[in-house]
Amino acid sequence: MDSRLPVKRGPKPKPGTREKLIRSGIEAIHASGYGGTSIQSIVEAANVPKGSFYNFFPSKEAFASEVIDAYSKRGQERLRSFLLNQDVAPRARLEAYFDDRIEAFRTSQYVRGCLMGNFSAEAADQSALIRDGLTKHFGAWTQLLETCIAEAQKQGEICDQFSASLLAKFLLNSWEGALLRMRAEKSDNPLLDFKEIVFKRLL
Amino acid sequence: MDSRLPVKRGPKPKPGTREKLIRSGIEAIHASGYGGTSIQSIVEAANVPKGSFYNFFPSKEAFASEVIDAYSKRGQERLRSFLLNQDVAPRARLEAYFDDRIEAFRTSQYVRGCLMGNFSAEAADQSALIRDGLTKHFGAWTQLLETCIAEAQKQGEICDQFSASLLAKFLLNSWEGALLRMRAEKSDNPLLDFKEIVFKRLL
Repeated sequence: MDSRLPVKRGPKPKPGTREKLIRSGIEAIHASGYGGTSIQSIVEAANVPKGSFYNFFPSKEAFASEVIDAYSKRGQERLRSFLLNQDVAPRARLEAYFDDRIEAFRTSQYVRGCLMGNFSAEAADQSALIRDGLTKHFGAWTQLLETCIAEAQKQGEICDQFSASLLAKFLLNSWEGALLRMRAEKSDNPLLDFKEIVFKRLL
Repeated sequence: MDSRLPVKRGPKPKPGTREKLIRSGIEAIHASGYGGTSIQSIVEAANVPKGSFYNFFPSKEAFASEVIDAYSKRGQERLRSFLLNQDVAPRARLEAYFDDRIEAFRTSQYVRGCLMGNFSAEAADQSALIRDGLTKHFGAWTQLLETCIAEAQKQGEICDQFSASLLAKFLLNSWEGALLRMRAEKSDNPLLDFKEIVFKRLL
């Protein structure tokens, strides 16, 4: 190919297009799954020309990885707003966070669950890029939980039979499993069962 | 349409075709997800004519529901082989079952997870038929765990702070969550964390 020829590209990206695509991607993949979402449906929902997608993302997989980043960061902000609240004792912060999530799932009629859990089920085996994103972000969530649990252990609110790190990982994984069952049963019972055992026995 | 005209159908089904399709469906959907599996790929893997698919299953959704049935029944047989083993104390039966599963996931390099968990993540919101199948089968698995836990509680092996029913539901859901994280991290750590907390603290 003659390198002096202009490379054919999609329309020049406007500011904000990238963010629109990511927002639409979170919405669409959360609702229909990774396999069930086409690039076409994402650009249509974002109301941007299809060519602009490839200006930003070399592939659907690369896009998915950024969707996971953005989704996780948004969720972590909410988690932080509870876990770093110094007006509340650390164990109560944890409980308030899960109560908030249960209320949100009730409002949304128990759909969608956690996008990171969904990607783990649907695409983790097929894509190292997606897997790396999930591992990084599950790690970040675990770290936030761990810090709060360690603080509660230090104050004697949570027993120290297990390390804060182990408890945090178990908590997050159990919660992800409860969300799966919630979606199958369309009820908050699995989330309430989680809370019952975790807060009456583990923490 | 003239009702005397013969209805156009696929080739007459041979015995075993249905079973071949289900077996191929379990394999394909477990490996590539529900959205990632086409009817074409299933009939090709089963080595049967495409028309025969519709002799047995009115839709991909109806097929998926039967795939869940068959997968769950196969898994329940294995679960039963551990939990009904009267030569072993009930709590040790539970532990042996999870050890067996961890070994199997190690051997398969931490892929695929639980097909019922995957369907919960990918298709439970979209299909009442799939949801009903999942609820029924998760219920059957829970019941098997519950019976064994109740036996262990009766023998004083497991503390009775919580009902066997609640413990069984929590156990199954937490395990499903640990499988999600296993697939993201490609490691048995989440499964070992599950065992550590469940068997050292809960049961």
